[in-house]
Amino acid sequence: MIAKEELQGQIERAARAVRETNPMAGSITNTVTINFVANAQIAVGGSAAMVYLPDEGEFLAAAGGATYINVGTLFPIYEETLPRTAKKLAELGKPWVLDPVAIGIGELRTQLLSCFKAYKPTVIRGNASEVIALANLWGLAGDGGASKVRGVDSTEAVDEAREAAVALARYTGGAVAVSGEDDLVTDGETVAISHGGSPFMAQITGSGCSLGGVCAVFTACAETPLAAALAGVNVYNLAGARAGARVQATGSFQTAFIDELYLATPEDIATNPFDLEEA
Amino acid sequence: MIAKEELQGQIERAARAVRETNPMAGSITNTVTINFVANAQIAVGGSAAMVYLPDEGEFLAAAGGATYINVGTLFPIYEETLPRTAKKLAELGKPWVLDPVAIGIGELRTQLLSCFKAYKPTVIRGNASEVIALANLWGLAGDGGASKVRGVDSTEAVDEAREAAVALARYTGGAVAVSGEDDLVTDGETVAISHGGSPFMAQITGSGCSLGGVCAVFTACAETPLAAALAGVNVYNLAGARAGARVQATGSFQTAFIDELYLATPEDIATNPFDLEEA
Amino acid sequence: MIAKEELQGQIERAARAVRETNPMAGSITNTVTINFVANAQIAVGGSAAMVYLPDEGEFLAAAGGATYINVGTLFPIYEETLPRTAKKLAELGKPWVLDPVAIGIGELRTQLLSCFKAYKPTVIRGNASEVIALANLWGLAGDGGASKVRGVDSTEAVDEAREAAVALARYTGGAVAVSGEDDLVTDGETVAISHGGSPFMAQITGSGCSLGGVCAVFTACAETPLAAALAGVNVYNLAGARAGARVQATGSFQTAFIDELYLATPEDIATNPFDLEEA
Repeated sequence: MIAKEELQGQIERAARAVRETNPMAGSITNTVTINFVANAQIAVGGSAAMVYLPDEGEFLAAAGGATYINVGTLFPIYEETLPRTAKKLAELGKPWVLDPVAIGIGELRTQLLSCFKAYKPTVIRGNASEVIALANLWGLAGDGGASKVRGVDSTEAVDEAREAAVALARYTGGAVAVSGEDDLVTDGETVAISHGGSPFMAQITGSGCSLGGVCAVFTACAETPLAAALAGVNVYNLAGARAGARVQATGSFQTAFIDELYLATPEDIATNPFDLEEA
Repeated sequence: MIAKEELQGQIERAARAVRETNPMAGSITNTVTINFVANAQIAVGGSAAMVYLPDEGEFLAAAGGATYINVGTLFPIYEETLPRTAKKLAELGKPWVLDPVAIGIGELRTQLLSCFKAYKPTVIRGNASEVIALANLWGLAGDGGASKVRGVDSTEAVDEAREAAVALARYTGGAVAVSGEDDLVTDGETVAISHGGSPFMAQITGSGCSLGGVCAVFTACAETPLAAALAGVNVYNLAGARAGARVQATGSFQTAFIDELYLATPEDIATNPFDLEEA
Repeated sequence: MIAKEELQGQIERAARAVRETNPMAGSITNTVTINFVANAQIAVGGSAAMVYLPDEGEFLAAAGGATYINVGTLFPIYEETLPRTAKKLAELGKPWVLDPVAIGIGELRTQLLSCFKAYKPTVIRGNASEVIALANLWGLAGDGGASKVRGVDSTEAVDEAREAAVALARYTGGAVAVSGEDDLVTDGETVAISHGGSPFMAQITGSGCSLGGVCAVFTACAETPLAAALAGVNVYNLAGARAGARVQATGSFQTAFIDELYLATPEDIATNPFDLEEA
């Protein structure tokens, strides 16, 4: 298990490298929150590019520092685009982030999410039920029923996905981030619980999708998948808490949240409160 | 004709039930305003999900409390998706809202809007010319030329669609909402004229689309289509008036408008000024 | 070379005509910034409509005062939609604006951008590298390497595209706008350098895309392509500078920027600082 100080150093260096090198993280993502994803990626220091076609996905996979695949609103062409892009990423050994949003809805989504097992995403980002469902789809689910209670600060929902998240991370060799009131991030060895955020984050569309896009930006510069995913989760908890403290409603929250992503320093991101445990 | 007090009670109960039960209203809607639709639905207390593929539309039809179909930016796959989704909704007896935006542009749009006649949407939401065109397309147009003047407070445009709206509502057994300076909502028996709003609402994209999505949320909980549609129209007039009073321009208006949707109470929504007339 | 006072008069008249006649400029544009494009078009006084299908593109080409084609996120159907729409525009002699965003990514994009050569867009809007790449694709590139230094106020990047921009404008008979720290607009005879803007404009997604959409609105009313393109570039530099001066971060900038587009008067737009040179 990594020491907290060492992990904080990795996060701070990743966040600083992103600000300094402006890495491009291409996305194939849903149309609902695509603008929010791009603006969040830019706000933390990255560069965004979105495509739909197969050869364009392969191009971005090769050209970008990392890639983000979010299966929110599938188009028919994704039957070609997503496997070809994921295959290219695996061939090139490039980092990528998967958001298995709405897993379980429709045949194509299941087919695509199944195929991604072979290409091992660097980071998987989802809510508790998505992470559990993906572990089940990939045949990695253990006996998750025995260990639901983890302490007062964990929300039951996130905590219920702990075993699934650990199993997924051990399978991919990457990291898994489970979003909730407190957020869980694991690489299969260490479990980090990141604190902060705001209830407003669940009352706008795209908090989760854009976090996936931001994690992709950090994977382009981070030393480990765990540091990348926790950098993303930390800056979301930090920006969410700061934005939530100065607004009364959800429209203003969206604006303030992008502002706070933009204003967060590498030190801020590294020192957002989190706890570490053995997986 | 329903008594005003009774209708206000229905609206207040619907708005309260939405806040308490967070009903999911899936959407197949245009890419221009899809983010606004989702955030507006969430702001009034609902839950949003958007898809494009046929089996996913059927899934949301079955899983949601209501569904929203907006034909703004058609994709080729909609030739399958929209009829299958509407058919599933009709089979299940689930409420749904149709926005016939841009009726008249292109062959597929006409084909799809024609096919919806068989599936009788619970609420139709459009501007005056869209409502008139839909009544014509469905062969429901009467002699609309004889009764254009309805009083000082009605805008001519909305008022010109009154007969078409009444005819559509009588055909579907649901409600029709016509957007304009004052808004007309009818179930074919009662005509409600709802007041408020802001000129800024016509100077941003998506006021109408997102109102359709919000009406869908209310149909999931309302006792009648009329109460659902008027709840949506009332909260839009209320939030528009409040937001418009505190901003100078359209960018700030968008933010303030979502804030006011979020802050509106069930009592606020029920008591927004409206008049009732015999249809 | 046109006199500055005459060009300012054309800009002011175009901006005033847009506010008075609310011209519709249809768009086929990317899903990332489609909402921003629409709201920016409306903010300056135009009307927006977006489509994807071939016959709908032709419909908007015929119905609108101008059309905007942005190849940001291509869908498969664009193989039919974009050539048919551009052909219709050329047949009707209607003004249109091309944004060759991400030129070089994928086969379809190259194929479509090549085909547009025959249909001569009224305005081409891009960043320096996109403008250079388009001139190369169309076989119009001269010896651009010899004249990179143009003075202290020009950014090197925009200035490197000067010859490509002039060559494109001479070929199309229209105007070309190159976006950067200072913006270059040319009709092949006159080169205008427009000043203002904000570093925040490069830190949000859609500054360039929405500028293309706004230029399309102005082409519907302007006496010349140069006046239309410079009207768009001037209002962007003006609104960017005003918005940037009153915010600290990128979320607030987006809101303030739309506000300032909305509040800019025809006089403001005409008198935003710009210099003229012989091409």
